[in-house]
Order: sequence, then C-alpha cells, then structure tokens
Amino acid sequence: MKACVLYSGGKDSSLMAVMLKKLGFDVDLCTANFGLYDSFHPAKLSAKSLEFNHKVLELDFEVLNKATDMIMENNFPNDGIKLIHNEVVEYAADYYPVVADGTRRDDKTPKLDKNQIRSLEDRKNIQYINLDSFGYKTIKTLVSSIFEVSKEKSNKENSSDYEVEIRLLIEEKGKSSEDIFPEHYQTRVIGYK
Amino acid sequence: MKACVLYSGGKDSSLMAVMLKKLGFDVDLCTANFGLYDSFHPAKLSAKSLEFNHKVLELDFEVLNKATDMIMENNFPNDGIKLIHNEVVEYAADYYPVVADGTRRDDKTPKLDKNQIRSLEDRKNIQYINLDSFGYKTIKTLVSSIFEVSKEKSNKENSSDYEVEIRLLIEEKGKSSEDIFPEHYQTRVIGYK
Repeated sequence: MKACVLYSGGKDSSLMAVMLKKLGFDVDLCTANFGLYDSFHPAKLSAKSLEFNHKVLELDFEVLNKATDMIMENNFPNDGIKLIHNEVVEYAADYYPVVADGTRRDDKTPKLDKNQIRSLEDRKNIQYINLDSFGYKTIKTLVSSIFEVSKEKSNKENSSDYEVEIRLLIEEKGKSSEDIFPEHYQTRVIGYK
Repeated sequence: MKACVLYSGGKDSSLMAVMLKKLGFDVDLCTANFGLYDSFHPAKLSAKSLEFNHKVLELDFEVLNKATDMIMENNFPNDGIKLIHNEVVEYAADYYPVVADGTRRDDKTPKLDKNQIRSLEDRKNIQYINLDSFGYKTIKTLVSSIFEVSKEKSNKENSSDYEVEIRLLIEEKGKSSEDIFPEHYQTRVIGYK
C-alpha cells in the first residue's frame, strides 16, 4: 500500500520511512513547499541517499503567509508551525491512503493530538501513522544504528524544514527572523550505516 | 539490543514482535503467569509458529489475587486487568532493557498513559514501546498481510490472556465468572502467511 512520509531529511522522518518500508509499505518521501524558495533540495538528497522516491507537495502560498503572520504576531514559532503541519497533513491525505510523519511520543509541536488524528482518518478515509510508539531513547538508539548523519549550522542551503520559507518570508516583510529562529545545528540524514 | 514483548499469542503483540525484529531488536516473547494454571501454552505455540523465543514471566500469585478481588468487587474487569498489566510491565522492566506490548492508539485498557511511561522509563532506566503509532485500520491491514490466524470460542485451552487465570480464581472463590467475562471469540496467531 502506498504511503506518504512527510519528510525533512531529518532523523525522525527517515526512521519512519525505513520502518514503513520494512513493514511492507510502498513509501514516497514528501516535502512540502509553498513556492517562495525551493527548500526541498536537502530533503531530496537525503531521500536519494536512502534510496526512496521523493516528491514535492506544492501547497498554497497563502498557508505560508498566514502562518508567518501568526509567528510574527506571537514572536514565537509554535502555533504557526503547527498550522503549517496540519495543512500539509490534510493536503497529503487527499493524495495518499496512508500519511505518516516523524512526530514522536515526547514531541509537543507540531503534533496531531488523538482527536485530530481520529477526525483526519475518518474525514479523509486514510490511515495516519507517527512515531508515538517510541520514546526519545529508542529513537536515538535506532537512528544511530541505521543512519549516517551530518551536523551543520542550519541555513537555507542545508535544511528543508518549514522554517526556511518562513524565515525568508519574515525577511521579505522587512523584519528580522533571528529572534524567532535562533541559530541552531541541523542534523540531516546522508545515508545508511 | 534485547527486547521483551509481553505476549498473549494475539495479533497485536505478534505485530509488535515482528516490527521490533525488523528494526533489529533481539526479541523474546514473554507471557506472564501467576502459578495458578499454565495458561502460557497457547502463547508458546504462537511464538514457535513465528520462530521467536518464548519465556514465561513468573509473577507473584498475590498480584492475581488482588486483581481478582478488585474485579469481583467491581463486577467489571478493567481496573483489575490494568493492575495486572502494570505489574507485569514493571516486572519485565527488571529483566530487560526494552519492554514492549501490543497496546494500540485506540485501546483504552490495559494501557500505560504518557505519565506512567515516562515514570517507568526513568525509574527503571529502560525503553518502553507500544503500538501507539498505529490506528486500528493500519493494524488490521498489517496483521492480515503478515499472519495466519485462528478464531475460536475462547477457553482455557486456547487463550493465554490474563483472563484465564482470573476466571479460574473467581471460580475457586466460589463465584461464576460468566457475567464478568462473557463468552467471546479468540483470535490467535498460528504462523506467517
């Protein structure tokens, strides 16, 4: 059965992809894009290094715009990122019978709660899968046994997170994004061990 | 890494076992017993049919006794079953670095909530894994693609659920267990497809 794993090139979504493949799903790794900047290239490279198909989900720019305004108003990213993630999941559910992401038991945001999951599965007649089975220790163990990763200062050339286009749009709107998204290190999967 | 999957011979715990094996864990299938009746044989047969090691976890009879009294007082099994399951998880965590069960996103009981999981993982320095990643539709799809199952009226010869010893203890205490555990069909895994 065809499954779409929402994919950033990071460890968690890579683990989800490998797990679903091992369970027999036909996996596409899917990265959302809002038309502002082609931020999907790092994810596409990671997908290739793991020998998965990669697709770009072309979402409406207005989703990015609304989320970015929310983030600028809050001066904090969580609600906007959550809005984007929900919209991306809904979009993917229109094209795939199984939609998965790399959100974990210990994650707070972006993360669908049980009621959102039930609503999504019922409304769209799909299956939704995340990494709620696992805690951070298990994921750390699995990731380090399966993947080679690179770790670099995050920038728009090495990241496919939602953050990249949000930051660019904040700058386009004449503000600085550095308070909201402080400099951080970015881990990207670059192959199997 | 060694993992204990709490195992009844049913579909959910079998799926957990297969998933962990595919992810690289060294899996033991473990069935709890309280010394009243050797109810672990059906689970042992299922484990053998799937080519896994099987172990019996020998728990204190007092756990069964306390849970059975609770169930008789409530005239309803949930709280007693939950008590037993928690005790079994705690016991397994003393012997294995990874403890898993077949509880699912949609299950109500027996099921550890997030706070219990966090407490268990921290106190015992273990990893706990369940099937919270998946909804009932996904589990149904996976189970039917992976396993051969048998379906029979549940009795003490074909079930390794906690229920078997609880029922026997209720009868020993001179009461009928049929109101509390109505007749039902039992699915047991009998091999791979």
